[in-house]
Amino acid sequence: MELETLSLGQYTFIQNGYSFGFAVMAAASLFFWLMKSELAPSYRLAVTITGLVTAIAAYHYLQIMLSWGAAADVTTGEVVATGSPFNQAYRYVDWLLTVPLLLIELILVMNLTRQETIKKTTMLGGAAALMIVLGYPGEVSSTGGLRFVFWVLSMIPFVFIVHQLVVGLKDSIAKQPEEVKGLINIAVYLVIGAWLFYPIVYLFPLVGLTGGAAITALEVGYTIADIVAKALFGVFIFTIAVRKSKAVENTENEAV
Amino acid sequence: MELETLSLGQYTFIQNGYSFGFAVMAAASLFFWLMKSELAPSYRLAVTITGLVTAIAAYHYLQIMLSWGAAADVTTGEVVATGSPFNQAYRYVDWLLTVPLLLIELILVMNLTRQETIKKTTMLGGAAALMIVLGYPGEVSSTGGLRFVFWVLSMIPFVFIVHQLVVGLKDSIAKQPEEVKGLINIAVYLVIGAWLFYPIVYLFPLVGLTGGAAITALEVGYTIADIVAKALFGVFIFTIAVRKSKAVENTENEAV
Repeated sequence: MELETLSLGQYTFIQNGYSFGFAVMAAASLFFWLMKSELAPSYRLAVTITGLVTAIAAYHYLQIMLSWGAAADVTTGEVVATGSPFNQAYRYVDWLLTVPLLLIELILVMNLTRQETIKKTTMLGGAAALMIVLGYPGEVSSTGGLRFVFWVLSMIPFVFIVHQLVVGLKDSIAKQPEEVKGLINIAVYLVIGAWLFYPIVYLFPLVGLTGGAAITALEVGYTIADIVAKALFGVFIFTIAVRKSKAVENTENEAV
Repeated sequence: MELETLSLGQYTFIQNGYSFGFAVMAAASLFFWLMKSELAPSYRLAVTITGLVTAIAAYHYLQIMLSWGAAADVTTGEVVATGSPFNQAYRYVDWLLTVPLLLIELILVMNLTRQETIKKTTMLGGAAALMIVLGYPGEVSSTGGLRFVFWVLSMIPFVFIVHQLVVGLKDSIAKQPEEVKGLINIAVYLVIGAWLFYPIVYLFPLVGLTGGAAITALEVGYTIADIVAKALFGVFIFTIAVRKSKAVENTENEAV
């Protein structure tokens, strides 16, 4: 990344974006874990994992922020590369862990049968890990050709996951209680919408989008997409868990 | 900010203010979260969020303190700028998260119907985020004209929020139990009072208030306003939750 194409304002704006990302993710984890005990026992696993996803992301935003700070010297009022490389791989390490987990939290909050849960989490989690692993060689490759090849390879599990979420989960969503159906659908489209950002941005260097403005759009865009796909998505998972817990409580009260 | 207009005493006083801010915010979070389980279940969400607001603020005071420390070298007995810029944007990043959340905690502790809660939190939270976003470009702009334009723009959602708090919430406050009505009113006026400080301070550079004394008044003033609007306001939210929890308990005892 050519850091020196950034103005001081752009460099600082990206840095503030990382700090914002860290704060949101860390606060989200605390929120999910503190509120976990208020839920019916069946939904505590899903919400605990929801908090793990944002906690792992918080850790990586801290690392990204430190790496970004070390990569440039701004004491002259301009962005001067120090030679210490900005480590973009942190994002991939993060996704390798968080993307399978966030699909798993969605399946868990639906509270399907044990067999269905194992089948769907293995399939979606595995495809998500494969998608990230295939994206990485293209990201670090120096030729546009390799970047494109790995983009295509990584789009295969991507399309598979989107298809599974939209078509494969249809029957399971249909069986969910009325008061959470809408929320589950929003959560699914939220994650798909946020994810669409990644393969588009991945192609930026191939179409000649480089320089300060492109780097700023890319880094801030990644941060926003991460917040939507992890923290905001998590709030939906939590709300689904709250509503389903209330339904359980009401049934118990009626039984008494 | 012209750091070199500060005396060593002023520089250290501001630094101590940040440290005080961090300590108050972090202690407040621990207090709210440790006491959460003592409340009736309906009020735990509001108090959890109250603790999140102060925790997010604590994180930003830590960052501000580090940035302040890096910006000046005082080993000669005078304040010498190191060239490392003092990052004022941390305050905006903080407010973008905490200001919507603290309005949300007020709505939640009132325990309105689900529909009213969603409506009010969306409206107030959205207006608060807009207010902060509109303030930022003026804060970082180098011309007084732009600073004034964004001050005016950001005052529109500000006035809307104050109007909503004073007039829009009147009916909902009227329906609150007698023993918390007074506390809710104090909490509302506390937040409005603390907030009035921000738009006034924002205009300081426009009216020529610069230099060491103005910077000290501004930074220490921001810290005090933050403590009032987050930690002290939070204590009121907590006390309201305690009183309402006792009312729930009494009703249950009567039923038995």
